[in-house]
Amino acid sequence: MRPGARSARKALYCGPPWPRVFELTARDGLARQGVLETRHGRVTTPALLPVVNPNHPIVSPKDLAVRFGAEILITNAYILGKGALREPVLRQGVHGLLDFPRAIMTDSGAFQSHVYGDVEVTNPEVIGFQRAIGSDLGTMLDPFSEPEHPLARAQADVDETIARAKEAVALRGEMDLVGAVQGGLHEPLRERCAREVSSLDIAVAAIGGVVPLMESYRFRDLVRVILASKKGLDPSKPVHLFGAGHPLVFPLAALLGCDLFDSAAYAKYARDGRMLFADGTRHASEVRESGCACPVCAAHPMAEIAKDEVLLAEHNLHVSFAAVREVRRAIGAGEIWELAERRARAHPALLDAMRELRRHNDFLEESEPLSRPGAMYYVGPETAHRPVLHRYRRRLEERYATPAARGLLVLPEGPRPYGERYRGIVERALSAADVHPVVKSVWGPVPIELDAVWPLSQSIIPDTLDPEALEAAEVFFRQWAAGAGYGFGVLWEGDATLEELRARAPGPRSVEWNLLRVRATADFQFGRGAAEALLRGPISFVVSKNTGKVRNVLADGQHILSLRAEDGLFTLKAAGAVRLHAAFPSPRLRVVAHPDAIPFLREGKNLFAKFVKEADPGIRPGDEVLVVSPEDELGAVARAAMNRREMLAFKRGVAAFVREGVPPPPSAPPR
Amino acid sequence: MRPGARSARKALYCGPPWPRVFELTARDGLARQGVLETRHGRVTTPALLPVVNPNHPIVSPKDLAVRFGAEILITNAYILGKGALREPVLRQGVHGLLDFPRAIMTDSGAFQSHVYGDVEVTNPEVIGFQRAIGSDLGTMLDPFSEPEHPLARAQADVDETIARAKEAVALRGEMDLVGAVQGGLHEPLRERCAREVSSLDIAVAAIGGVVPLMESYRFRDLVRVILASKKGLDPSKPVHLFGAGHPLVFPLAALLGCDLFDSAAYAKYARDGRMLFADGTRHASEVRESGCACPVCAAHPMAEIAKDEVLLAEHNLHVSFAAVREVRRAIGAGEIWELAERRARAHPALLDAMRELRRHNDFLEESEPLSRPGAMYYVGPETAHRPVLHRYRRRLEERYATPAARGLLVLPEGPRPYGERYRGIVERALSAADVHPVVKSVWGPVPIELDAVWPLSQSIIPDTLDPEALEAAEVFFRQWAAGAGYGFGVLWEGDATLEELRARAPGPRSVEWNLLRVRATADFQFGRGAAEALLRGPISFVVSKNTGKVRNVLADGQHILSLRAEDGLFTLKAAGAVRLHAAFPSPRLRVVAHPDAIPFLREGKNLFAKFVKEADPGIRPGDEVLVVSPEDELGAVARAAMNRREMLAFKRGVAAFVREGVPPPPSAPPR
Repeated sequence: MRPGARSARKALYCGPPWPRVFELTARDGLARQGVLETRHGRVTTPALLPVVNPNHPIVSPKDLAVRFGAEILITNAYILGKGALREPVLRQGVHGLLDFPRAIMTDSGAFQSHVYGDVEVTNPEVIGFQRAIGSDLGTMLDPFSEPEHPLARAQADVDETIARAKEAVALRGEMDLVGAVQGGLHEPLRERCAREVSSLDIAVAAIGGVVPLMESYRFRDLVRVILASKKGLDPSKPVHLFGAGHPLVFPLAALLGCDLFDSAAYAKYARDGRMLFADGTRHASEVRESGCACPVCAAHPMAEIAKDEVLLAEHNLHVSFAAVREVRRAIGAGEIWELAERRARAHPALLDAMRELRRHNDFLEESEPLSRPGAMYYVGPETAHRPVLHRYRRRLEERYATPAARGLLVLPEGPRPYGERYRGIVERALSAADVHPVVKSVWGPVPIELDAVWPLSQSIIPDTLDPEALEAAEVFFRQWAAGAGYGFGVLWEGDATLEELRARAPGPRSVEWNLLRVRATADFQFGRGAAEALLRGPISFVVSKNTGKVRNVLADGQHILSLRAEDGLFTLKAAGAVRLHAAFPSPRLRVVAHPDAIPFLREGKNLFAKFVKEADPGIRPGDEVLVVSPEDELGAVARAAMNRREMLAFKRGVAAFVREGVPPPPSAPPR
Repeated sequence: MRPGARSARKALYCGPPWPRVFELTARDGLARQGVLETRHGRVTTPALLPVVNPNHPIVSPKDLAVRFGAEILITNAYILGKGALREPVLRQGVHGLLDFPRAIMTDSGAFQSHVYGDVEVTNPEVIGFQRAIGSDLGTMLDPFSEPEHPLARAQADVDETIARAKEAVALRGEMDLVGAVQGGLHEPLRERCAREVSSLDIAVAAIGGVVPLMESYRFRDLVRVILASKKGLDPSKPVHLFGAGHPLVFPLAALLGCDLFDSAAYAKYARDGRMLFADGTRHASEVRESGCACPVCAAHPMAEIAKDEVLLAEHNLHVSFAAVREVRRAIGAGEIWELAERRARAHPALLDAMRELRRHNDFLEESEPLSRPGAMYYVGPETAHRPVLHRYRRRLEERYATPAARGLLVLPEGPRPYGERYRGIVERALSAADVHPVVKSVWGPVPIELDAVWPLSQSIIPDTLDPEALEAAEVFFRQWAAGAGYGFGVLWEGDATLEELRARAPGPRSVEWNLLRVRATADFQFGRGAAEALLRGPISFVVSKNTGKVRNVLADGQHILSLRAEDGLFTLKAAGAVRLHAAFPSPRLRVVAHPDAIPFLREGKNLFAKFVKEADPGIRPGDEVLVVSPEDELGAVARAAMNRREMLAFKRGVAAFVREGVPPPPSAPPR
């Protein structure tokens, strides 16, 4: 567990139970695991909201809660408001009518309005009705923008959406609002709509108008729409993806930061005799045997399932809820990218969607945690384009200082750790031949001193790589080598080099491996110049007895850094923080806290997001940060839990886990 | 349902219930769905045999049958024979002792002997003991060959294995035998051992010595070992993969023709607090939430599961049995390749294994059915190397006759059907510009007349292809174009061509599309020259009113061919069969039946494998075949259900589904 995580977990629920709050419990890329508080209990996200048709509930709401663990459902205010149910629901409330004690979201009927064109109600009427029936989350009546709508039409829709969102906010009373994001395929429109709607007093932002994309497997367009919306959305608000009910899309949608899905698919597909699976849909009549472990499939022969709509619906629910749990598990384990990449192999259109992601790496990278436990598995050539590797290559270019050497020794990709594997040749290269060994890895170039940094240190790749991955390795390498000022004339490659180096070097001489590693890692992690700033004075290391690896770094006798075995990166100590603070000007590495918070931070209390006033835009979740006062006085060293955008947006939750408070500087230097 | 399939299904169980019989019910590549008869009931294969430790049955054998649907289990004769259980099991029999009424396989203790080196029993003792306790399938005591054993040692092991197998056969009495295949990583040894052992009177062939490969994720070596064994094995016998208990390997192993798996993993992993999943293993303590739909995970919180060995074992069993059912479903649906390719993305070592497969395409292709219902989905660049596409490209080279044309018009890959998409340009090319349009598809070159043939007609690929796939498309194309005698100087490519063609062709002229398609398809399907032989005399078509597509082909007023909408290939009619029979010399397209069978075949009865005397080695499951007498007198036209090797090996089951009997030729020609 990360430092401070326990206290953060506790802090999560210590506020008032109401008004509603969304708080993160884990994160992975744009994906979040969180808890949404409602008047009818907490909802763990990502969550699936089964759609309940109040006229024909194929599985009763009570069963949804008890047997399937649904913490929230969604039903249609349009259906409730126009038929025979109108009077009963107004009398009993929606929770009473449905006999569901947990959270209920209501939909406004915008989709029905769009499809049937027969909704005569107005936005204020819909809001009023949802309030009257006690909906926990009521939805505004938004115009439905078709993907094919031209710019002008989509623009008008967005203007109308924003106007109606404002109207809904004015009328919401105690009810929490779901605000819609429209804009068709027009990315700037989506971003604007998202920004304006989510800046209002809404509880949930819902990305709408995407059902036609999902129905026709236009997942690449879905990616563009979601990401454009996410760029504008307030990150502290949960995001609902309207109409996303097929488990095939859950990993991708969660990866892109969607928190809530609603599913009518379980019922609709059951009615057509179709079964949902995590990898697609199959007609029950064509499935001789179900390769599914769910209680329905484990207990009933297919012949029975195929002709029983309720069993089909229950199977679909089991599969869908399990798929959402799998997404939550993957987020908790830092494996959402792996899950999404693997699932993408289920349909070529998902592969196209994954390929689209790399175009958005600058945005995706902002939310990517620094590292995660465990190895990184190669799924396909797309793996090398994950934002965390995009960041690796960028930080390598921007932060890592290439050593002065006559040239590069290019080592081939191979099992990790590279340093161990190539020990002899590396020592000769470094000590005698004045040549810098760098591995041409499929993840990007790896200077040998950085081979213990995650994920370079821990990754599992096939023996035989596909041409796309090899080509990417080549491109990554050449870009970096050119940027680092290595002329190609001095590239050395292959086995011949070993012989040449042997000839030049009489035998292995001692290389200051530890110092090389520490210097390179410090610059890579904190920025170019960090090694210089941190490693002033006499340097010593505390080395692990078991592994022989550096554990602590001391400078001038002060403990400034600890090296983490898990990810090969540093934990910053107070003495190190002081040095970086002095060397790097504001805002670098800084999180600026409210002055009132400083004394508590100095005592080691965590920094909550609501006390953050500013932050370095370069900070990423997991980065070591300097917590300072508005006057840039150092108060603590901490590990960021959020990036700047999130720190400024969230009103709840920990922005940075404080490792150590830093006392105010003494008025006079010690003697 | 395919013609004759219903009667075959019925015929399956009409023989005596004993001796044991293995019969296929579906097939896909080397994968088979089948039924193995034992004295204790039928076992549907592929089957999982949970390993029951009679001293510590974590889940009772009765529960395995009732709650998990196990039709067979495996237990260890070595454990039963040496401890306190010896007397009870000799008294009650193994079914009585375990209280399991279904099939029981016993293991000899060869693995224990190998690991602990403490087995003092001999092969005859082990066989005798297994007979005495009433095992349904008793295993010989084979020497365990380590993968690293050098050739000489492995050779000795193989010789010893064969000798012991012969000894066991002599001693088996009424008990059915499991014969072992050893040989380490030495492929010719594996093949020889498989051939010799499976030619003996054994019921099941077990590939042994593979646990070390699976434990260290050496799946590529596993592929080599299994395929070398399969090349030697009698295809009519079920194949057990000893020690394969992780669902991760089931799709791959089934794809390679393994029918039985045994799993101690469910119990061993539970003891260590580990959970099996179709995509790998996870420590229960690290799983916050299980993304699994099984009855255990659907009903219990993870905290409870994690500390309960029985719940963990039950979860592992649910997942493992579901994984085997999924394999059976995939075989039934013709999707085992898709399943294996998708599952391979779960671990880089599986990707290496999939990449190995293409090296064995000539062997794999022999068992590949001609077509299957539904579309082919692109999973990765490996998809283009599936044996069915290898066959497509080979038949294209060997059978399809390139039309006389001045050159090729190379059309880019795109949505299917190509002919519709490129209609205008294709018509101009064919009619005016004397240029042959061919699509440079990722599956291989597609002459436009063949674009309705499966899987070219029905395949779903990403919009953006990876470089490996594009490179393969290029290589496939150039190889074919060179072989077909097209000089590269006359290649036309891209949009410019359309303009050029327009300039040359004043307007679309009528092209005999239907005839072009029919001719090309006939040659492609039956061999070069088939169109010439079939399409003699005046030709007419019966065309579908709905689709406008050819349904029936008539020559000289006789119905000779029907075109199937599902796969764009022909069903051969009796009149067509007569023409092909006259044109193609024996053994081409022939299956030679026992003379006694001919009258029944003429009445339309199916051809059972036991009546097959010879067959064209070029026949593949699904091919149209000519069933002839040993004197090459045509008796029927049929659809092959097996290839030659299988027809000659199987003693049960249908070798070919007869479509139409062909009466003996009249002594004088009709007038």
